[in-house]
Amino acid sequence: MIIVMAPDATPEQIKDVEERILSWGYGVHPIYGKERTVIGAVGVPEADKALYLEQLERLPYVERAIAIIKPYKFVSREAKREKTRIRVGEVEIGGNDVVLMAGPCTVESYELTLATAKAVRALGVRILRVGAFKPCTSPYSFQGLGVEGLRILRCVADQTGMAVITEVMDPRNVELVSEYAEILQIGTRNMQNYDLLREVGRGTRPVLLKRGMWAKIEEWLQAAEYVFLGGNHNIMLCERGIRTFETHTRNTLDLSAVAAVQELSHLPVIVDPSQGTGRWSLVPRMSCAAIAAGADGLLIEVHPQPDKAIKDGAQSVSHAGFEQLVNMCRPVAAAIGRRLA
Amino acid sequence: MIIVMAPDATPEQIKDVEERILSWGYGVHPIYGKERTVIGAVGVPEADKALYLEQLERLPYVERAIAIIKPYKFVSREAKREKTRIRVGEVEIGGNDVVLMAGPCTVESYELTLATAKAVRALGVRILRVGAFKPCTSPYSFQGLGVEGLRILRCVADQTGMAVITEVMDPRNVELVSEYAEILQIGTRNMQNYDLLREVGRGTRPVLLKRGMWAKIEEWLQAAEYVFLGGNHNIMLCERGIRTFETHTRNTLDLSAVAAVQELSHLPVIVDPSQGTGRWSLVPRMSCAAIAAGADGLLIEVHPQPDKAIKDGAQSVSHAGFEQLVNMCRPVAAAIGRRLA
Amino acid sequence: MIIVMAPDATPEQIKDVEERILSWGYGVHPIYGKERTVIGAVGVPEADKALYLEQLERLPYVERAIAIIKPYKFVSREAKREKTRIRVGEVEIGGNDVVLMAGPCTVESYELTLATAKAVRALGVRILRVGAFKPCTSPYSFQGLGVEGLRILRCVADQTGMAVITEVMDPRNVELVSEYAEILQIGTRNMQNYDLLREVGRGTRPVLLKRGMWAKIEEWLQAAEYVFLGGNHNIMLCERGIRTFETHTRNTLDLSAVAAVQELSHLPVIVDPSQGTGRWSLVPRMSCAAIAAGADGLLIEVHPQPDKAIKDGAQSVSHAGFEQLVNMCRPVAAAIGRRLA
Amino acid sequence: MIIVMAPDATPEQIKDVEERILSWGYGVHPIYGKERTVIGAVGVPEADKALYLEQLERLPYVERAIAIIKPYKFVSREAKREKTRIRVGEVEIGGNDVVLMAGPCTVESYELTLATAKAVRALGVRILRVGAFKPCTSPYSFQGLGVEGLRILRCVADQTGMAVITEVMDPRNVELVSEYAEILQIGTRNMQNYDLLREVGRGTRPVLLKRGMWAKIEEWLQAAEYVFLGGNHNIMLCERGIRTFETHTRNTLDLSAVAAVQELSHLPVIVDPSQGTGRWSLVPRMSCAAIAAGADGLLIEVHPQPDKAIKDGAQSVSHAGFEQLVNMCRPVAAAIGRRLA
Repeated sequence: MIIVMAPDATPEQIKDVEERILSWGYGVHPIYGKERTVIGAVGVPEADKALYLEQLERLPYVERAIAIIKPYKFVSREAKREKTRIRVGEVEIGGNDVVLMAGPCTVESYELTLATAKAVRALGVRILRVGAFKPCTSPYSFQGLGVEGLRILRCVADQTGMAVITEVMDPRNVELVSEYAEILQIGTRNMQNYDLLREVGRGTRPVLLKRGMWAKIEEWLQAAEYVFLGGNHNIMLCERGIRTFETHTRNTLDLSAVAAVQELSHLPVIVDPSQGTGRWSLVPRMSCAAIAAGADGLLIEVHPQPDKAIKDGAQSVSHAGFEQLVNMCRPVAAAIGRRLA
Repeated sequence: MIIVMAPDATPEQIKDVEERILSWGYGVHPIYGKERTVIGAVGVPEADKALYLEQLERLPYVERAIAIIKPYKFVSREAKREKTRIRVGEVEIGGNDVVLMAGPCTVESYELTLATAKAVRALGVRILRVGAFKPCTSPYSFQGLGVEGLRILRCVADQTGMAVITEVMDPRNVELVSEYAEILQIGTRNMQNYDLLREVGRGTRPVLLKRGMWAKIEEWLQAAEYVFLGGNHNIMLCERGIRTFETHTRNTLDLSAVAAVQELSHLPVIVDPSQGTGRWSLVPRMSCAAIAAGADGLLIEVHPQPDKAIKDGAQSVSHAGFEQLVNMCRPVAAAIGRRLA
Repeated sequence: MIIVMAPDATPEQIKDVEERILSWGYGVHPIYGKERTVIGAVGVPEADKALYLEQLERLPYVERAIAIIKPYKFVSREAKREKTRIRVGEVEIGGNDVVLMAGPCTVESYELTLATAKAVRALGVRILRVGAFKPCTSPYSFQGLGVEGLRILRCVADQTGMAVITEVMDPRNVELVSEYAEILQIGTRNMQNYDLLREVGRGTRPVLLKRGMWAKIEEWLQAAEYVFLGGNHNIMLCERGIRTFETHTRNTLDLSAVAAVQELSHLPVIVDPSQGTGRWSLVPRMSCAAIAAGADGLLIEVHPQPDKAIKDGAQSVSHAGFEQLVNMCRPVAAAIGRRLA
Repeated sequence: MIIVMAPDATPEQIKDVEERILSWGYGVHPIYGKERTVIGAVGVPEADKALYLEQLERLPYVERAIAIIKPYKFVSREAKREKTRIRVGEVEIGGNDVVLMAGPCTVESYELTLATAKAVRALGVRILRVGAFKPCTSPYSFQGLGVEGLRILRCVADQTGMAVITEVMDPRNVELVSEYAEILQIGTRNMQNYDLLREVGRGTRPVLLKRGMWAKIEEWLQAAEYVFLGGNHNIMLCERGIRTFETHTRNTLDLSAVAAVQELSHLPVIVDPSQGTGRWSLVPRMSCAAIAAGADGLLIEVHPQPDKAIKDGAQSVSHAGFEQLVNMCRPVAAAIGRRLA
């Protein structure tokens, strides 16, 4: 930790800060500059950093306190050089394959879900993405079929030989959803729902952690650290767009974050271009771009008749559109030495 | 709902859209402009709006679908002209008084909590604001004392004759926290935690709903609508800063939203300048500004020794600082014809 | 400057960085922590900071380089404790008075400009705010009357005994506009138009520098430093809202920045609640809030018939509305010990 | 234009709005809904739209006025279906080739510029990107060599057989810079510097218009429309990152905007991943992603010794790094049926 003293700090005030730091049991290294004195504190243990930092910034004669160590640990590349690989059935996420997860936004009926499952399965997709519990901005929107939806998607998945990824929103439902789905999705609105993070962290199902639409990369990785500390190390991150001033797209898909997170963390990174753009016509191109940026997988909304979808039709591609998307993405994956699974 | 057709939409395509709208049972009013055809759909019931809207936008020959009706209903001024007033003990929130809620960020100990409670009570504050369960970005930060914290704050509140506002994060704890606190706070990270919103909506304790740091005013009011629909109408909104590119302040306190929400909704609006700025030195001035902007109350972090606070010391004012704040705010409230309670 | 080495930096790499710093002629103070080595560089002169910083960050074995000194100098409170006061005719900006600058968004005609000038003058306003050259997002919008507009506003100002503030957009027009106006306004879009900043910096007319809608406080102050370095020290800053995700208001008026800048700089700060909110109904309340936050003045759009204004009618208050605004603001200014001029 | 009346608008008020619209000479189409009346105005000519819209929104009994027509015209796909192709020497921008523009951030010396020019030319690059006039946030940073820099870059370009793209910041320099460079770059800070846009619009040199870091796609296209209306139709757009809350990267590169603009406009789109990310290690991957998203070209900062660059070293790739980038990008371009020029 580096403490920058105010320009007019007196020797007594500098001494006060040094004594505080020493009283916490750590070493003190002052640097007396021309305009500012800077104090380095050495040996402060991880867990208490944030605390001491804030205390010192409160002093009127301290200008800034700067943390040197990253606020996450186990999910960082420094903790583990090699990429985490997560096995789900026959699929490996985080390996050389770019993994597709596709399906309708929400379970509307057995028939529609099955139709899309068959269509995407025929194109090689082995992970069915579909929602039973839906987070909706409006209380008047369709909130998902709930348990009935879980049953349908399990049935469809078994019939087509696919694994299931679906969202869990309520910590009370983690066990329930784990019975039906191979991968638990934490949605963007719940990225900092800590009780939910702890609950999935105690489980054994792999977790896909969507980035909060307001979250800095550092905060996203800290959220992953919550899950990790619970004991569940099978975590994949999912970039799904952040909120900015731009309104033409529903969110701003931050593909630089995909490349950056690959440097910072060993966790696989998935991209959701459907939510990221909110416009079906942009999804195929942004899928290609995501792969080129280094994504380990894609999460795509597909619907047999997007113009009749109950939710998020505007961002779903049709069966034909999905086939086109796969055909566009395959050579891009190959161009960077990977395989579209 | 207004549907804007693509500029090159054919008569058949226009007809297709009209027939879809008619098939849902509503009236169709086309306007044939020079460059675009626009179709008005009349009589569509609230609950299904979002759905139809998205379906139509999916069509390649539709450019945009524009909702005319606001996506919230019962929390709007149109539903109820007069301001909602919420009674908590002897305090009325939403009336002519500007209500102060103050206290330490988190329960550290009985002694510290009592010291601050007494200090703010002596200045007229009747609502003690303090955290037992703390949402922390870092899993390594202090997470609050939990149930033990609830017991302490109840004890302190009873001793000083104050009501308590504290945060609830987990739907499983709503009942528990309701036993200890008069007002339930929903934190910024949980503004779209719908299971939690539904749970506090089923309860009887007044709810303070903080704005998500990413949330548009419209989405904030929709979150309030979730609580309202559960049956609990005692809702106050709390502006606590939104996330922007500015880093000098922790958040950007959006006081225009306070004035705007007073026009759009009948719910009282509280402002949290401590979290909003993240800097104790800015808190008194921004408290004055919040009152001038029309806030019905303030949520202020106060700590006996902010430079030794376990959490958020940088944004807490000291006892002396709080007294100064009250002295600054009182004439401002009077200047706009209100009273600082 | 503080250089944070990468966690796996070797002793040779640390030595390389130290030698580079020494070769630039400055002192080196390494701190060997448990997980990172941090190197303090002492004595680096202002002008070259940014340069060396970037060079070092380029090295793969350097994690971060952190500037300690603020990137602006002469406009900071450290350079000058007492507030800058700017005299314009009989008005002093930056003193105890809160100064009103009001008028129509743009010169539409002699008659309309005169009508508004008389109306605001009657309420005590001595600075007429009106645009002759208008920056317009759309090339199809009215671009202002140009030189003809300058003549009209000078004529109106002389007739009513007022000073004029008007925008200059083109460095080629600085001299021209200076002949007609007492204060030169740099608009939000031009905050980093450096040739224009240099040009007004060489002049003698006081400058009102609007914050770029994308600009951090630090960047805004650096833009002011450009003007200051040209020799013109009569600079006032103007907060007019920043761009965020919120769309209900045209911009997000950042009143915390007003309080913050008063701490960081000695320059007076003006607030423009008309542009800041884009909604006339919010202007009076936000004017009060701005004064409570510490603003030294207000910039208000007033129009005799806002519903017929050529530009920005939605954010202009009427003559009657302006009178009401003044009546609301006066007691708020008094409440904080200032006087509405 | 669609005017949404307030929910409590009286028949007289509705009539008032209708009469205003009629008095401007256009047709009126009211739609009487259950909760709101909506009025369609038909035939309003492009140029006056914004004006009338704002006037009506000012009325207290009007809730919203919604423009239906896009605010740009000649740069839209509707005005011209086929993509604009711009020829610069032997290079065609906007055709099937993905065009590379590369070089150092700024002219430091003849030798360094020549070294990089030769290095990138050897890899097939035909457009040299280098700055003579530099926009710098800090007035204390190196501001470029100016005219001397222009002479050097022309000399280097002639020697290596390359065309030059360089930034022009001051309308007074447009003619001068046009003598030395084949392509004029408008920087992000000047996207809404209208006098500069008009000046390059009157010229004949192709213009590369960078997106303002705060600009919506719609505003960016309106800025291009300014240039177009001046008579210069050789415009390329350049996505270079927008400003968001994320701080790990210098900006947030918005690749969805690249795909979106290709739908909305016929102008070629270039991507600048150097400025977009601010981190050299992310540049190669984001270059690949940009191509996959549909970019017509890349603008890359290359420096012989990035750790000794005077400006922006942190985002420059080395000669070896650039070779690697080209080798990574080539197969990605091929994968989508294009050729890296």
